[in-house]
Amino acid sequence: MSEKRFYIENASQFDGQTVTLKGWVYNKRSSGKIKFLMMRDGTGLMQGILFKGECSDQAFEEFEKLTQESSIEVTGTIRKDPRTPGKFEMGVQSFKAVQIADVYPISPKDHGVEFLMENRHLWIRSQKQWAALRVRAEIIRTIQQFYDEKGFVRFDAPILTPSSCEGTSTLFSTPYFDEKAYLTQSGQLYGEVGAMAFGKIYVFGPTFRAEKSKTRKHLTEFWMVEPEVAFNDLNDNMTLGEEFVEYVFQNVISKRAKELEILERDIKKLEKMKGPFPRISYDDALKVLEKRGCAIPWGEDFGAPHETALGQEFDKPVFVHHMPAQIKAFYFKQSDTVGGPGVTGNGKYALGCDLIAPDGYGEVIGGGQREENIDVLKRRIAEHGLAEADYSWYLDLRRFGSVPHSGFGLGLERTVAWITGVEHVRETIPFPRMLNTIRP
Amino acid sequence: MSEKRFYIENASQFDGQTVTLKGWVYNKRSSGKIKFLMMRDGTGLMQGILFKGECSDQAFEEFEKLTQESSIEVTGTIRKDPRTPGKFEMGVQSFKAVQIADVYPISPKDHGVEFLMENRHLWIRSQKQWAALRVRAEIIRTIQQFYDEKGFVRFDAPILTPSSCEGTSTLFSTPYFDEKAYLTQSGQLYGEVGAMAFGKIYVFGPTFRAEKSKTRKHLTEFWMVEPEVAFNDLNDNMTLGEEFVEYVFQNVISKRAKELEILERDIKKLEKMKGPFPRISYDDALKVLEKRGCAIPWGEDFGAPHETALGQEFDKPVFVHHMPAQIKAFYFKQSDTVGGPGVTGNGKYALGCDLIAPDGYGEVIGGGQREENIDVLKRRIAEHGLAEADYSWYLDLRRFGSVPHSGFGLGLERTVAWITGVEHVRETIPFPRMLNTIRP
Repeated sequence: MSEKRFYIENASQFDGQTVTLKGWVYNKRSSGKIKFLMMRDGTGLMQGILFKGECSDQAFEEFEKLTQESSIEVTGTIRKDPRTPGKFEMGVQSFKAVQIADVYPISPKDHGVEFLMENRHLWIRSQKQWAALRVRAEIIRTIQQFYDEKGFVRFDAPILTPSSCEGTSTLFSTPYFDEKAYLTQSGQLYGEVGAMAFGKIYVFGPTFRAEKSKTRKHLTEFWMVEPEVAFNDLNDNMTLGEEFVEYVFQNVISKRAKELEILERDIKKLEKMKGPFPRISYDDALKVLEKRGCAIPWGEDFGAPHETALGQEFDKPVFVHHMPAQIKAFYFKQSDTVGGPGVTGNGKYALGCDLIAPDGYGEVIGGGQREENIDVLKRRIAEHGLAEADYSWYLDLRRFGSVPHSGFGLGLERTVAWITGVEHVRETIPFPRMLNTIRP
Repeated sequence: MSEKRFYIENASQFDGQTVTLKGWVYNKRSSGKIKFLMMRDGTGLMQGILFKGECSDQAFEEFEKLTQESSIEVTGTIRKDPRTPGKFEMGVQSFKAVQIADVYPISPKDHGVEFLMENRHLWIRSQKQWAALRVRAEIIRTIQQFYDEKGFVRFDAPILTPSSCEGTSTLFSTPYFDEKAYLTQSGQLYGEVGAMAFGKIYVFGPTFRAEKSKTRKHLTEFWMVEPEVAFNDLNDNMTLGEEFVEYVFQNVISKRAKELEILERDIKKLEKMKGPFPRISYDDALKVLEKRGCAIPWGEDFGAPHETALGQEFDKPVFVHHMPAQIKAFYFKQSDTVGGPGVTGNGKYALGCDLIAPDGYGEVIGGGQREENIDVLKRRIAEHGLAEADYSWYLDLRRFGSVPHSGFGLGLERTVAWITGVEHVRETIPFPRMLNTIRP
């Protein structure tokens, strides 16, 4: 690949130069002696202008044959045009049609979502889908940069696991030679291993839940980033989450302003996502819900309406901590009081912390401080009906140099939905996997 | 997490200061009135010195209770000591044992690999394993940086797929609601979708092969990075691969010199991995093999001895291109002659390119130019006994704006093995998955 290949996103470096754009026809129109060719090359859109006389006669005639999405190599001169979105246009001299496309199924008119999902492999060429996935890529880059800069070590948890982290009802499974393996739901337990070896790590990979729910927030295959830090307590954990979310928002806003504009996302709203984020206990969250007319009894988990109500109360992401121990997984450290020291035994509260995004984007972070006492952990494993033998390696972390430690998981697709403002997580990943959806 | 937390890798910023190190006992020894405590905190090793009088009496006594891998918080003064590996040591004033570890199963004496693999969750705390996984993390970071800097868009291919890319004999599968899904072997076909939408993309994620082979180069779960570029031909593809491998080597050498030293890797050898890399045709490679006494008949694939011989010939990574079409997958563009133009039909050669690493590290890149003609591709799908309906979305890429395009896959674990010099890929990933190995 030549270093000098022209790409639309770098047009400003080629002002006044004659270049060859390799890409596709986005659309076209004629107006007497002038023809307009909207071209895309994967990095952006650029308008080409064909003037009779300025461009070859042959090109002028062949223009008529071009169909939407035909592949083309177009040679011309780059010049400033402040009126166009990309600020540059091309005065076309000649072009070559690489392939004349069949009648393209996705026209500018409205299509049903089902049809678009069946044509996901083409739909992603459309402006809004294209922009959302560019933002996704930027979010991934920024996530990695945040942890790399802070000295966290990337630590890949396995996808194929012999047992489950949070129950077996929603697991995908495969024969694994003479055994059975499950697709991971979370890299956390493995991440804890990493934290004891490297101090601070992050797991970042695909996770799986065979959930039968059909909501705009659920995929069966989704990516999670899961930092885990030795010697971090619950408050350190919330501080890390807060710095992290702020960093991602501020970086993506500055790097992907053009894409967010295409998505008609109000950047002012995103700019407000700066720490400190409110931190309230579950008990206090219940009071907010009561005030807002959607009370729930102590001990119940939040649903979508409650998350929305909490978002409205604060208009910022809010950490809810100290949840009822009864609704949290076995590995949480517990406490008898909110804000009190952890107990070596079973407490009323779990030292968890969930970050609820505003505007109904839901829980984007779930995490907390882990139980570090081996006897308590063994009892919990039994109470949760799990087999201690499956967790012998996990218990080893408490046998050999146990330390207080915390971590969390952030769901990538929900974060992409939140930042891009797209309504359904199916538009936040190239090939969404959902209930009964596994194609293309 | 406080910004000011002390970590060993940043010791030079704390020279002369009193800090608290939070970590684990790596080992210890006494010598009269002076005690030595080798501490690790996940970012490195540091020696703590306990002088009677300088450190508290209580600490001096409690030192005796410390066992290998006990967790500790140690307060003391950081001072230069050019004789120690980290160039800094700590004059210990006091410490707190967080947990006294049980008898640690991994002692400095030799253990069998089977035992170490069963204790993988602890083994990674050992110096060489720790160093290899730090290098792995750096390689991942560098891979991403290379493509991000070049304007490639990260494009995640799905893990759960309805059909296979290269045959079904080595696939893991799971029930997927009312269907069956397979774990991906390669993101390439999806990556091609991305290249048509974004111009240049890279897929980077876990891939799976249910291979029954037990060699030092095979895992059932491994990570691949797979760039794909629209309008790139075979030569562009080799140039991209060459720039990429050089970039990764040069960056990792400069960033992880300390870890490579722990691994006793000869950096001079790694520094030589600079482009240009030799590019030879398969036909010419056969001549080399004949000369070196391991001839194979035309049409056969290379095995480990042939890769090793090619490595010895060039002492550099070597691209082998224009393989026999008969041993390559259906999607390769073909040619009748080496170096000639591609043919629209079946040719003798596939426009593939594999990069063979020296010193027997094997094939680290496999890739080539894709067939862009829909009729040829349909015929190939039939010839390979595949169902055209499964590839309708893939064929759409040739219906709607088909362009010449190329890409390749680089195996992460083999690259980590190559750079670190570890003998078996099982030491290049936190939790290796192999034939009959799925724990911990």
